[in-house]
Amino acid sequence: MSGAAAYVAELEAAKRFMREHDRFLVLSHVSPDGDAISSTCAIGWMLKQLGKSYVLANADPVPGKFAYLKGADEIRRLADLSAEAPFACVIAVDCADYSRLGDVSHLLAENCAMLNIDHHPTNDRFGTHAWIVPHAAATAEILFDLLESLELKWEQSVAESLYTGLLTDTGGFRYSNTSAKVLRQAAHLLELGCSADELAAHLLEKVTLSQLDLLRKALSTLSFRRNGKIAWIAVSIQDLVDTGASPEDLDGLVNYPRNIEGVEVGILFKQVETDRYKVSFRSGGSADVAKVAQQFGGGGHIRASGATVAGNLEEVAERVLAAAEEALT
Amino acid sequence: MSGAAAYVAELEAAKRFMREHDRFLVLSHVSPDGDAISSTCAIGWMLKQLGKSYVLANADPVPGKFAYLKGADEIRRLADLSAEAPFACVIAVDCADYSRLGDVSHLLAENCAMLNIDHHPTNDRFGTHAWIVPHAAATAEILFDLLESLELKWEQSVAESLYTGLLTDTGGFRYSNTSAKVLRQAAHLLELGCSADELAAHLLEKVTLSQLDLLRKALSTLSFRRNGKIAWIAVSIQDLVDTGASPEDLDGLVNYPRNIEGVEVGILFKQVETDRYKVSFRSGGSADVAKVAQQFGGGGHIRASGATVAGNLEEVAERVLAAAEEALT
Repeated sequence: MSGAAAYVAELEAAKRFMREHDRFLVLSHVSPDGDAISSTCAIGWMLKQLGKSYVLANADPVPGKFAYLKGADEIRRLADLSAEAPFACVIAVDCADYSRLGDVSHLLAENCAMLNIDHHPTNDRFGTHAWIVPHAAATAEILFDLLESLELKWEQSVAESLYTGLLTDTGGFRYSNTSAKVLRQAAHLLELGCSADELAAHLLEKVTLSQLDLLRKALSTLSFRRNGKIAWIAVSIQDLVDTGASPEDLDGLVNYPRNIEGVEVGILFKQVETDRYKVSFRSGGSADVAKVAQQFGGGGHIRASGATVAGNLEEVAERVLAAAEEALT
Repeated sequence: MSGAAAYVAELEAAKRFMREHDRFLVLSHVSPDGDAISSTCAIGWMLKQLGKSYVLANADPVPGKFAYLKGADEIRRLADLSAEAPFACVIAVDCADYSRLGDVSHLLAENCAMLNIDHHPTNDRFGTHAWIVPHAAATAEILFDLLESLELKWEQSVAESLYTGLLTDTGGFRYSNTSAKVLRQAAHLLELGCSADELAAHLLEKVTLSQLDLLRKALSTLSFRRNGKIAWIAVSIQDLVDTGASPEDLDGLVNYPRNIEGVEVGILFKQVETDRYKVSFRSGGSADVAKVAQQFGGGGHIRASGATVAGNLEEVAERVLAAAEEALT
């Protein structure tokens, strides 16, 4: 079967799954991000249009950032579902493996039917029905096609859910997964009433004071090597305590040194124990930072990698920076 | 004539202008930005396809950031064109009024034909032919339609020019001018070989060390009023000297306080003389900062405004913050 034919077959199977069952439990991954919450809400909206009953749930609370999504307030905690269990039918969205659904086994009926819709290339095809589209930028991209194929009448609320998934999983249309298809879908969603500027401001530009304080502290450590070709910053456990920042607030910090003009390798040293650092590497050019990370027992891609290194900051930095210098030559 | 019919008539007039003349001078505005340089390059590319001769020029040098655009290296300085003057035919792109072309009068023939293609609503329709599309997000958006209508065969290089114009003038598809049409055009340009991630990284994420140093200094002044509903930062003349930052490096700084969660009004105090500050206001919500700016002889929009206020920082801040507090209530 060609890729396109397989896609249509899986799409049709997903539609049948939704039409033939009822009383769905809709789940996504632990620590849900924009695409996870959006996809959960969008499936809920579709099931409602189909006249089905459903429960939306997640192992973790919905981050406040996504509270504006219609249906987000219906997403319950797994721990609160015991009275309604067991569920005979599950739709899992944006979740690469069964364990990332959280502790669900006790909620599910034996021989539970499970439709697994996801875009992660690493998805292990758990469940009784899997629809995995590894070239999709977001699960929202897949659900856009599903909604259209179900011939449901678009509403602005579900358009906002899907735009949210597309926007967050492509880093605001900046990652390499930003395809022509993503932009055409986003165009359609704008026509349905989504506000590109309001969603971008809310989802991509808002920061907490903790995040900004952490950035300030991290930037105060900015240092260079090799005529500015290597730039690094460091964050201590005390910095996290002082700023009240969460571990997720570290996401993206390594981009600050990497994005400086002339820098080829950006590095973040993040203290995880007194004498242990998680080191993140980003390469903007030709330097292969996967090789650097491998020298310290880590791994990753040519342009993004990581490793954990024992020692105090001075020792760790010295060893890591020497290896990074090697990678430049 | 309906809007659509007028658009087509102006498009056809622009095509006739390009086809009926030769030996064009292609100009854009002083201090050229991404859309100005992109549009200059794209017009040059189209004229070449039409078999026309042309000179691309600007009052100011092409910022190094845009050197990758095909044709950017052909853009000459106005001051170097005396030997070839006078020009009998000009295409001005992305330029809202004649004076912003720079000092061009001595380069132009009497009765010079001039086609003025622009998207700024304030364009004064200078020139002999004006094609102004105020609802277009960028001049690149207009030129996309022009290129298609000329039935020229797309090449990746001109696609990259137009993507650059769209991306920079919409702030990476984040401003309110981000329309469905913009995203559909961008989708088409990706299919022609543009790299969404490489262009975004280069155009939107790269910062100079001066910019980052300035950010660091500015963030160290971050202060709050009214339970965090007002946030402000300040930049002194000495900060610019110390960091080597240019005035353009201040662009966007005011967004840092504005983007903090819970902040309704973000303010930047920028010292312009010993006892004089340019004050920028940004509102994320309902507070009308145009009214605040007006109290100090300035102006702007509900969500973005500015004014210049005399006094030292302490005096200026006290008066301005009191007025901003009023606007919250």
